[in-house]
Amino acid sequence: MKIMILGADGYLGWPTAVDLAFKKHKLMLVDSYIKRKIMTKMNREPLVKSPTLSTKVRKLNKAGCNVSMANIDCCDFTKLSNIFKKFQPDAVIHFAELPSAPYSMIGNKEAWSTLDNNLHTTLNLIWCVKNIKTDCHIIKLGTMGEYGTPNIDIEEGWLNIKHNNREQRFMYPRQASSLYHTSKIMDTDLLWFYTRMNKIKVTDLMQGPVYGIMNNDFIEANDFQISFAYDDMFGTVLNRFIVQAVAKTPLLVYGSGSQIRGYINIKDTLACISLALENPPASGDMHIHNQFTEQFSVNQLAKKVQKSLKKIDIDVSINKIKNPRIESEKHYYNAKNKNMMNYGLSPTFLNDDIIISIAQYVLKYKKYINKKILKPKTKWA
Amino acid sequence: MKIMILGADGYLGWPTAVDLAFKKHKLMLVDSYIKRKIMTKMNREPLVKSPTLSTKVRKLNKAGCNVSMANIDCCDFTKLSNIFKKFQPDAVIHFAELPSAPYSMIGNKEAWSTLDNNLHTTLNLIWCVKNIKTDCHIIKLGTMGEYGTPNIDIEEGWLNIKHNNREQRFMYPRQASSLYHTSKIMDTDLLWFYTRMNKIKVTDLMQGPVYGIMNNDFIEANDFQISFAYDDMFGTVLNRFIVQAVAKTPLLVYGSGSQIRGYINIKDTLACISLALENPPASGDMHIHNQFTEQFSVNQLAKKVQKSLKKIDIDVSINKIKNPRIESEKHYYNAKNKNMMNYGLSPTFLNDDIIISIAQYVLKYKKYINKKILKPKTKWA
Repeated sequence: MKIMILGADGYLGWPTAVDLAFKKHKLMLVDSYIKRKIMTKMNREPLVKSPTLSTKVRKLNKAGCNVSMANIDCCDFTKLSNIFKKFQPDAVIHFAELPSAPYSMIGNKEAWSTLDNNLHTTLNLIWCVKNIKTDCHIIKLGTMGEYGTPNIDIEEGWLNIKHNNREQRFMYPRQASSLYHTSKIMDTDLLWFYTRMNKIKVTDLMQGPVYGIMNNDFIEANDFQISFAYDDMFGTVLNRFIVQAVAKTPLLVYGSGSQIRGYINIKDTLACISLALENPPASGDMHIHNQFTEQFSVNQLAKKVQKSLKKIDIDVSINKIKNPRIESEKHYYNAKNKNMMNYGLSPTFLNDDIIISIAQYVLKYKKYINKKILKPKTKWA
Repeated sequence: MKIMILGADGYLGWPTAVDLAFKKHKLMLVDSYIKRKIMTKMNREPLVKSPTLSTKVRKLNKAGCNVSMANIDCCDFTKLSNIFKKFQPDAVIHFAELPSAPYSMIGNKEAWSTLDNNLHTTLNLIWCVKNIKTDCHIIKLGTMGEYGTPNIDIEEGWLNIKHNNREQRFMYPRQASSLYHTSKIMDTDLLWFYTRMNKIKVTDLMQGPVYGIMNNDFIEANDFQISFAYDDMFGTVLNRFIVQAVAKTPLLVYGSGSQIRGYINIKDTLACISLALENPPASGDMHIHNQFTEQFSVNQLAKKVQKSLKKIDIDVSINKIKNPRIESEKHYYNAKNKNMMNYGLSPTFLNDDIIISIAQYVLKYKKYINKKILKPKTKWA
């Protein structure tokens, strides 16, 4: 297949590129480095600096892959269109978004840049597909955070609603707890609108907080670091906890720690992307899959890290701090995740070995840990 | 009260300004003229050119009102903040949006400019309120079009959903049929998000297609034309029909004409704005009101125009043309509109006299009608 990956330099984009390159797909990788730039500007470098995309692409091609790249901003419609027209992709995987809830809550400027970047890239991609190649499958990374924490079961994207003896299938009502997550709700609205209007094919992946590293021979051999963030702004919670543990600082639990979410290992993210590629919707249809494998409370996660790392003699303490976010702490949470299982996903469940292997990766680069960026700086109000 | 009106130069903004100025409120009118500029660029001038806002403001003040103005773009946060900070409004009425469904469906550029302008102005206004004066009441013009045409009753903003024996109150699920209307869904998402986070006070007015003119002594005496659009892009359906009738061209019904919507006379819009001002929500609460007074199908509207104008010897023919839009034509439609009635709105129902009085206004300026802009040019797909 000919596949474009937007945001191919990121924590998910790069592993996806490596995975699909070795599965013999022809790839076009696109990135503007906006996230690298913001992380540098905010003094929140990932644990290990990763080579530039062009260096990485050169090595992939030396290893027999068929990969091109373009360093453009997907907000530039002319540039994106030109590349799209030339490459004629069968599918586009869209990770080209600002992914940080705390960043989006800093100020007006950051709020707008999150909305602007995320909606503009999504709109431009949609217009490339509808103008140039309507049978191209858009696979968009959404987030479970779009749903928030409703008091009813979270279905996969859709909900049949009965009201006054009549019935309508709606998109499941969404209510997020950060501006970033709200921007993803809007992405979903855009995708569903143009799916109805222009009969495009869209898969929206509602992913839970992702964790972990990619152990791939090629990555190891080439020292191709993924963009492993552990700071308060760009790090996901389990990765943050493991770095905090390795740095011998307490795990920082926001609030009571009883917030429940659905989590996923990055290896399963890659498996889900491949399953989405293999199972495109019909034209004019939109697939929405909840992409996580198991639910934990933050307290459960913290205790798992504590217990696992004890096995390699790391003593872990847990600190509950005032929640910088405005979110429900005690809430019902029951989210469905059957779609990916039905496609054949065999889930990776979090266990001691996985936590230890992530910790061993972090230990290797322990000297790079910047302890100043572990504590949350952005308050929701 | 000290009231800011964003988009004060427009079809709704200007009559609102006049109405509130004579109710002795202290006003700050804001407009960037973006809609004027786009209408000129697209060759779609309103029926009568209206004087600039500064001319109009001068005359209002001569008549004893207390009105200031600023010709700034609300997308410029610094400029908007400075004016907001200086004026310290008790309420802001937000009309500063690109209001055209067909315009938003022309191409990628117009789609993005609609999203960009509408979300950026709303975001900036929210940030002014949350940073500078959190008890300022935001009154935002939304649209009934956000709801689309669901197969269940349309409630006023909210819906209690029972699912698997549990219950949750959600924002009523929205599904619009143009990108413009989708941008208004996103506005509502933004307003509801920050209402929850920052305890601001918001009223979102889901207005149906508005029609009519403002007969106010001051407007008549000063020849202060409202921005009465009748073209395919900026004109609302009943105003378009009346101009088509006066121009002796057939009324252009899109598709079967069985599309039903809730309509409102512009006089009732003004009454609703005043009622919203008098009934602010508590901090952290958001009011959503469906702002229309009666439901008609497009065919019913066309026949009403035909019947009414026969009384003043205008023969009206009706032409059904291929629908340029993608929308349900045969659909259930039952929308609630109790909130404004409960506040005391005494609705103006459409009748022969009203249609004739609008036609008489149009007849006065018949020579200005540009017949080239009556037919729809933008196709949805």
